[in-house]
Amino acid sequence: MKREEVFNFAAGPSVMPRSVLEKAAQELLNYRGTGMSVMEMSHRSAAFQEIFDGAKASLKELLRVPESHEILLLQGGATLQFAAIGMNLLAGGTADYAVTGRFSSRAAEEAKKYGTVRLAADTSATGHDRIPKQEELSLSPDAKYFYYCANNTIYGTEWHYDPLTPCPLVCDMSSDILTRPVDFSRFGLVYAGAQKNMAPAGLTVVIVDKALAGHELPVTPELMSYQRMIESDSLLNTPPCWCIYMLSLVLDWVRESGGIEAMEARKYARAALLYDVLDSSRLYIPHARREDRSFMNVTFSTGKKELDAAFVEGASKRGLLCVKGHKSTGGMRASLYNAMPLEGAQKLAGYMREFEKEHV
Amino acid sequence: MKREEVFNFAAGPSVMPRSVLEKAAQELLNYRGTGMSVMEMSHRSAAFQEIFDGAKASLKELLRVPESHEILLLQGGATLQFAAIGMNLLAGGTADYAVTGRFSSRAAEEAKKYGTVRLAADTSATGHDRIPKQEELSLSPDAKYFYYCANNTIYGTEWHYDPLTPCPLVCDMSSDILTRPVDFSRFGLVYAGAQKNMAPAGLTVVIVDKALAGHELPVTPELMSYQRMIESDSLLNTPPCWCIYMLSLVLDWVRESGGIEAMEARKYARAALLYDVLDSSRLYIPHARREDRSFMNVTFSTGKKELDAAFVEGASKRGLLCVKGHKSTGGMRASLYNAMPLEGAQKLAGYMREFEKEHV
Repeated sequence: MKREEVFNFAAGPSVMPRSVLEKAAQELLNYRGTGMSVMEMSHRSAAFQEIFDGAKASLKELLRVPESHEILLLQGGATLQFAAIGMNLLAGGTADYAVTGRFSSRAAEEAKKYGTVRLAADTSATGHDRIPKQEELSLSPDAKYFYYCANNTIYGTEWHYDPLTPCPLVCDMSSDILTRPVDFSRFGLVYAGAQKNMAPAGLTVVIVDKALAGHELPVTPELMSYQRMIESDSLLNTPPCWCIYMLSLVLDWVRESGGIEAMEARKYARAALLYDVLDSSRLYIPHARREDRSFMNVTFSTGKKELDAAFVEGASKRGLLCVKGHKSTGGMRASLYNAMPLEGAQKLAGYMREFEKEHV
Repeated sequence: MKREEVFNFAAGPSVMPRSVLEKAAQELLNYRGTGMSVMEMSHRSAAFQEIFDGAKASLKELLRVPESHEILLLQGGATLQFAAIGMNLLAGGTADYAVTGRFSSRAAEEAKKYGTVRLAADTSATGHDRIPKQEELSLSPDAKYFYYCANNTIYGTEWHYDPLTPCPLVCDMSSDILTRPVDFSRFGLVYAGAQKNMAPAGLTVVIVDKALAGHELPVTPELMSYQRMIESDSLLNTPPCWCIYMLSLVLDWVRESGGIEAMEARKYARAALLYDVLDSSRLYIPHARREDRSFMNVTFSTGKKELDAAFVEGASKRGLLCVKGHKSTGGMRASLYNAMPLEGAQKLAGYMREFEKEHV
């Protein structure tokens, strides 16, 4: 298929802005007159340092990260952060975890290796179709932090509020970072795998309150110590240079597109197109409860496996790719990250209506 | 500068084959008719799985990895392996470490968090200018493994033999993997950061004897458990997809270029050009002892800081980039990885002779 014919609704890794990819292709063999690819450059070179500093400065500017917090560019994905948070911030103490899906559940399991994990909420009884309300949260007086995953890609639910807690918040924003403003004064740590809204897979952005670092367990690997990574400005060893370069290009694109507020407005517009279809449908069954649904991942099914498969197949034929739901939920999932053009959501909404007409 | 005018002698990240970069640029916006970039593809898609399986199959074929060993494609670089080896293989026991440079020293320090580390050798007294001989190695009867770094990029020394030990060998081959045949029956674990001979930074190849996995400490993060990574075929979470794709292209290039034996012959030819100059020079002082010198990193100086600086500056003007030595040794370093054309070494040797004529 031609690129123009395709909209990629994958949950991550996922669509990137076309202009960013074009620039990357154009600079791939010779980055701005250096005679080298970014992939070949020493991470200690002036040219790479400029890319690195630029990416960090853009994140700081776009997300309005305060001086109290440090931005780290790391490897290992969310999965390694599950452990790093346990080693550095839990470190033998107690923390509250809200389990609203697979990734927060895994984060809680992993943290148990490093301290006491209390369940502040658990939505598994109803198939993680909702987000707990503030008054439902069971908060421990001695919790060092409250952990949650802001957006659940598999289930299509999203926290539409920042919980009020006596302790700092620690939040996995892998699938909704850069899609809304964040008040970092409430957060001890925010992290995100890059492969949804930021860069290719292989990079994790961590934004940590410096006051919380430096208390890690003795068994913490050097590369997982927030304190050591703050001290070395994430350059303790060779970083994932290409991913950081791509991040810098994506952040330039976010800025040129109007910044976080523009991203936020676009995300509401895109998601509204699909939820409008679901809300007036006699065929589709949304997975998430209305008040908790995600603006990033729209999950639904027809309730019939064969019909779901027919939907996915028809979508693929139209260039609407990767709308098959996660194996644990079945059905369909359309992921609408920052780089998804409105036109993609329009085409998918059109196809949903067309498919419904044929099958109701 | 134009790419044609440049030879990149950086120690890693480092030069990649031009044809590989051309292919990557050409496929960047649309990978083989999928309508997507590899950077945008789900790691659970059939197209990416094919890339992943292809890269592993190529490594297995080219390195002749036996069935007893598993190939893992991980994140975190050598630095995270320093800890992973401690958590998984040392795990409260004793191991012998040969310290022949900065990276083996750091590996030994990190492993102390997870068990008893004994120094089997330490060449720091003479500025790591040599490799210990077999008879110098102090071997513990209860060592679970013997750890060494096959090639020391900073000092320009290389082990030209595999130590004979009663326990399995564990080896950091970051800078000489794919440049010589390896008898894996001697090795419990071999690992290498990709950014010298394999792929862009952000990928680590680990080749581990499956019989040694599964005994990790309880505090081991899930992502660092060799057993869990073997069980999930390195796909426990989203892998560094772009790096794995680039690895697959580099391995295709190695195969098309004649495989490991061809890489080995080329490396001798390249290094000989520079060592010939050093051996007949009245200006240059090689850092490494003759019998232990590296075929990957040629280290030397003039003994005078200003003259070294003049050498580096003159090299840069001729497009011979990144020949400045590591800050801990000073002087010069020319790294000659697989993708360095013979012509690059010829040009550098020519410049070295020319510079000597002018300054002796």
